[in-house]
Amino acid sequence: MSKQVKTAVVGASGYTGMELLRLLLMHPNAEITCVTSRQYAGQQLGEVFPRYASAPGAEVLFIEPDAAAIAATGAEVAFLALPHGVAAEYAAGLLEKGLKVIDLSADFRISDPEVYEEFYGAPHPDRELLKEAVYGLPEVRAEEIKKARLIASPGCYPTSITLPLLPLLEAGLIDPQSIVTCSMSGVSGAGKTGNVLFSYCESNESVRAYSVPKHRHLSEIEQELSIAAGEKVFMSFTPHLMPAHNGICTTTSAKLIGDADKVNEVLTEAYKDARFVRLLGKGKPADTKNVTRTNHIDIGWEYDARTGRVILMSAEDNLGKGAGGQAIQSFNLMCGLDEAAGLLNY
Amino acid sequence: MSKQVKTAVVGASGYTGMELLRLLLMHPNAEITCVTSRQYAGQQLGEVFPRYASAPGAEVLFIEPDAAAIAATGAEVAFLALPHGVAAEYAAGLLEKGLKVIDLSADFRISDPEVYEEFYGAPHPDRELLKEAVYGLPEVRAEEIKKARLIASPGCYPTSITLPLLPLLEAGLIDPQSIVTCSMSGVSGAGKTGNVLFSYCESNESVRAYSVPKHRHLSEIEQELSIAAGEKVFMSFTPHLMPAHNGICTTTSAKLIGDADKVNEVLTEAYKDARFVRLLGKGKPADTKNVTRTNHIDIGWEYDARTGRVILMSAEDNLGKGAGGQAIQSFNLMCGLDEAAGLLNY
Amino acid sequence: MSKQVKTAVVGASGYTGMELLRLLLMHPNAEITCVTSRQYAGQQLGEVFPRYASAPGAEVLFIEPDAAAIAATGAEVAFLALPHGVAAEYAAGLLEKGLKVIDLSADFRISDPEVYEEFYGAPHPDRELLKEAVYGLPEVRAEEIKKARLIASPGCYPTSITLPLLPLLEAGLIDPQSIVTCSMSGVSGAGKTGNVLFSYCESNESVRAYSVPKHRHLSEIEQELSIAAGEKVFMSFTPHLMPAHNGICTTTSAKLIGDADKVNEVLTEAYKDARFVRLLGKGKPADTKNVTRTNHIDIGWEYDARTGRVILMSAEDNLGKGAGGQAIQSFNLMCGLDEAAGLLNY
Amino acid sequence: MSKQVKTAVVGASGYTGMELLRLLLMHPNAEITCVTSRQYAGQQLGEVFPRYASAPGAEVLFIEPDAAAIAATGAEVAFLALPHGVAAEYAAGLLEKGLKVIDLSADFRISDPEVYEEFYGAPHPDRELLKEAVYGLPEVRAEEIKKARLIASPGCYPTSITLPLLPLLEAGLIDPQSIVTCSMSGVSGAGKTGNVLFSYCESNESVRAYSVPKHRHLSEIEQELSIAAGEKVFMSFTPHLMPAHNGICTTTSAKLIGDADKVNEVLTEAYKDARFVRLLGKGKPADTKNVTRTNHIDIGWEYDARTGRVILMSAEDNLGKGAGGQAIQSFNLMCGLDEAAGLLNY
Repeated sequence: MSKQVKTAVVGASGYTGMELLRLLLMHPNAEITCVTSRQYAGQQLGEVFPRYASAPGAEVLFIEPDAAAIAATGAEVAFLALPHGVAAEYAAGLLEKGLKVIDLSADFRISDPEVYEEFYGAPHPDRELLKEAVYGLPEVRAEEIKKARLIASPGCYPTSITLPLLPLLEAGLIDPQSIVTCSMSGVSGAGKTGNVLFSYCESNESVRAYSVPKHRHLSEIEQELSIAAGEKVFMSFTPHLMPAHNGICTTTSAKLIGDADKVNEVLTEAYKDARFVRLLGKGKPADTKNVTRTNHIDIGWEYDARTGRVILMSAEDNLGKGAGGQAIQSFNLMCGLDEAAGLLNY
Repeated sequence: MSKQVKTAVVGASGYTGMELLRLLLMHPNAEITCVTSRQYAGQQLGEVFPRYASAPGAEVLFIEPDAAAIAATGAEVAFLALPHGVAAEYAAGLLEKGLKVIDLSADFRISDPEVYEEFYGAPHPDRELLKEAVYGLPEVRAEEIKKARLIASPGCYPTSITLPLLPLLEAGLIDPQSIVTCSMSGVSGAGKTGNVLFSYCESNESVRAYSVPKHRHLSEIEQELSIAAGEKVFMSFTPHLMPAHNGICTTTSAKLIGDADKVNEVLTEAYKDARFVRLLGKGKPADTKNVTRTNHIDIGWEYDARTGRVILMSAEDNLGKGAGGQAIQSFNLMCGLDEAAGLLNY
Repeated sequence: MSKQVKTAVVGASGYTGMELLRLLLMHPNAEITCVTSRQYAGQQLGEVFPRYASAPGAEVLFIEPDAAAIAATGAEVAFLALPHGVAAEYAAGLLEKGLKVIDLSADFRISDPEVYEEFYGAPHPDRELLKEAVYGLPEVRAEEIKKARLIASPGCYPTSITLPLLPLLEAGLIDPQSIVTCSMSGVSGAGKTGNVLFSYCESNESVRAYSVPKHRHLSEIEQELSIAAGEKVFMSFTPHLMPAHNGICTTTSAKLIGDADKVNEVLTEAYKDARFVRLLGKGKPADTKNVTRTNHIDIGWEYDARTGRVILMSAEDNLGKGAGGQAIQSFNLMCGLDEAAGLLNY
Repeated sequence: MSKQVKTAVVGASGYTGMELLRLLLMHPNAEITCVTSRQYAGQQLGEVFPRYASAPGAEVLFIEPDAAAIAATGAEVAFLALPHGVAAEYAAGLLEKGLKVIDLSADFRISDPEVYEEFYGAPHPDRELLKEAVYGLPEVRAEEIKKARLIASPGCYPTSITLPLLPLLEAGLIDPQSIVTCSMSGVSGAGKTGNVLFSYCESNESVRAYSVPKHRHLSEIEQELSIAAGEKVFMSFTPHLMPAHNGICTTTSAKLIGDADKVNEVLTEAYKDARFVRLLGKGKPADTKNVTRTNHIDIGWEYDARTGRVILMSAEDNLGKGAGGQAIQSFNLMCGLDEAAGLLNY
């Protein structure tokens, strides 16, 4: 029998948790020993999520989130699908118990605690742990992820925005201060919430910008872009809510420096071994419908000679490559599994 | 009894035609004497559009499109909801018969026939008539519209993009060469079509950019922006298709020149008498759900000090203020009616 | 100037209230003097409902619901868009102040208070007033409505189910004990709610039955069918929630007694003067998309010789003919206005 | 390495074909050697379906449908996702070449060719082959399926309707002549089509009955119900189109004979070993959102003492358990694989 890694999902009641569970239930090398949720403690996974009711593994019980209790289930790796601020505390406790931790909150994504405080409005909850956390973008830091105890798994917008831009910035092909991005996210990005704003009748037939001009994800986006550019990058980012369940469509425009033909060359080289980045080529927009419920990100591009701008068009599933799928990808790397184990779903 | 203007809708089988009919059926000062469609000739309006089956006026018969036949119904004003290239020919014939013409195609929107040819891939169909056509943006050219025989009613994207920008360009508040726009349109923008790309299953849960980097509407957008800026403007524009029936959400960012506080001042002054422009103020994104099936355009804005860019956020109905509603607004002006007659619907 | 009736909408914060406001803002003979909502007291109508922000009348302030305060605004007619149990109390207070009352709750729909208690789980709140209330189905009781002080405006499912059935039962054309009905309602039928069950992500791509086997509306449906049949009718009714904003689609099957050709004859005779009932004829299913945002109900039918059953297919807007539109229709009758005033919208 | 069965998908350009491909690409014991489509011949699977572009196996080329060419690829089993009338011809040719055939069309579902002709309007295309075909409902005929060369895989509506009813009819718990069913199907049930009726704008916010009163699927539904009941069953069936991509929600009501408590007992016994039938129990409606993209059918039930009727509520994915998933289930049985191989997706 193949290797089985015992896993825990902490805070499994929302959509990110639900997607993590879906992927873990189907994963050939993962066993769920523990799911936590204050709200659902005492209920079986399959009761809380009727979609999974008949899955092998669906009989596991929800427990209260507690590091000792989680460790006692034998879990070797814990995924944290908790609100920022809360996650850090569990991370510390679980690491202490010897688990590896993949945190899907923002708590360990921003290496500079001052920037964290600026964007999240509270002092960083654990500056010490922050130092060892690895920003878990597998296409960029696979080797670090393999050795990490603590992964800060990137946000949904950052993944869709940085993957197309990073190689171009590193290659000096675009002006780092000219970046303008619009993204459109499905409603699941707002979480499983009773907020009437995200009710069917308020979200259907509604498209609107929000968190203008300084969405929290800008902190990690600019951090990563700055590393690639070798200078502090400031960019314009406008997220939009659109009437879909899943999916992020991102369109970025930036001033080209040099030769447009090199765009393709640089992207191709950068992602030649990346199993979840699909380059569509020039003139091919990415469509969310091709990536929902997968760990893929599709990237197309175009050059606009009239304005001298490169247009980058990417699509991913906000819950997949933008959250749960990407976390599983890090999990695979950390556990010495095939990077794509459990992720070859379509 | 109040004044009744006899109207014809030429090419009334698509969504723009359907919206024009809806507005004219409810209009207190309009009578539909004629609707044309090769496909539906011989059928009653109410048969073709079951939604309108019981409306007073729904008994009018579709006829083949023919200038003489249209004029023979007594129509004083004709709306053309025809493809570009075809519209110009009907416009000429109808003007000759003494009708006023409101053309919703692109044929008379671009004052420079070379630009028309560049963007529409064919020589301009009627350079002579083009000279007298008025680009029918009522918020900008009300006086010209009142006196016109021939209106080129603006496109859906152009209306949502130019209305927020024009006053700021005129006031010199933004850098004309720094404009980057993303728009998201509902699927009705693609017309009533059997193209499988716009089928429910291909459009639902799908968001994608298209016509990158040079959508045809750029021609009229840049024309109007250039007039306001006093220089030739080139801009970056990426339209997206989103899973909604109606609505356009537009987000534009541009470099501020000068004082951010003046943005509000300039917009407020520009639109203080505009009955269909609703300024939401600073920090207030526009939401398509508030404007669908109306002739309103909602405009909010924000200033991003980090990048020095102004963010303009507008929402309209692509079939309303972006097509049929706006055409009715011009109709009202041309016929000496209240500008809002028949348009106070919510 | 035409007659203007001063109106109040009590409990105007939900979707029924919102639709009532929409219709009243456009109504040529209605003036809104008062809107109430505990939640929104002190805010302007146009602030609470940005869609209506620029409508003449949108400046009216929300006040706390209080009979004296409502009467003090000069309102002559009050619409109650309140939960059942609560509505009765306001009805009494407002009638006392001399207003006419159109109640959209269930409080006065069930003439037998024991049945009310059976279905609503509480003693009837006002047995005395109940005696004078008129069940406001204008196609059935126009003359009573004209003279009434207190209207119990029918529910959404009952309207879509009873209008096709009543004439056939009266004519003895169907077996009253053989009726089986399935209805599908848009999510707005659940109200403007923060219940996560009606969030976008839980309602999109979801169809499910609910309130099986004894939905509260059965009480008024069976009451009206029994009157028409001349015997106590019990029927099978299964409502479903479907992923749409508005609309109810109802399919009823019942055993035919006698000649199938008489179905058309009887329906045609029954609704020959009904301005909002559109008979589609044999073999023509009704489609919600043709009636949303209108006061129409479309009715088609078919005969299934294999089973001897008549199939009745109706479509209406749950907020229109199923709630707000129908209430306005009663309002028009009560106030001596044209029955269709303010309702000729498409 | 585990057993690998070589498979062909004939007519793989539509939604059923697309779902079959999805399941086969993920199937641990299947290899796709051949996909056919006149429209796409010469293109790679991953080009035609960008969603699958990076899947191992996506490089296989579409070829013209031809029995010899299909056999030449080494395929051992062929799935036919072809229109009825066309499928029979390919089935004969492929069987002759020694392949096993799983036909998803109606051609071999109706054992009586006269009934086929009555419902499909043409003589049966192959009466000889019809005799050996097995109606592939694995919950009912697993043993026959294991030995079959030719499977007639059931339709989407029939699966959702017959699975709840068959055990109750066999047990004599319901009156076979009292069955009334309403089903609601997602738009993908209409196929990947350019028909404007199924465009986004015509299908969104639209619910309507269709094919009333004699949908083609009645032929196979009544055939199976009649076998179970031991008498010729006629039933009332009204299908509806609803605005969702996937999913069928079915509600059936029928007169109970005997004890309501036995309903649960009979269903539980009938499906105690069925891995894809999930019994929800009394009072629990089935929701399409829990079964989409899976091979599950969820079944709940209720008893309505007022009318003496049992209400059966089922949900499945029309493309999953209603088409592609069910065909894979038969494939597994025919090939001696685990019945659930490749189907444990959520």
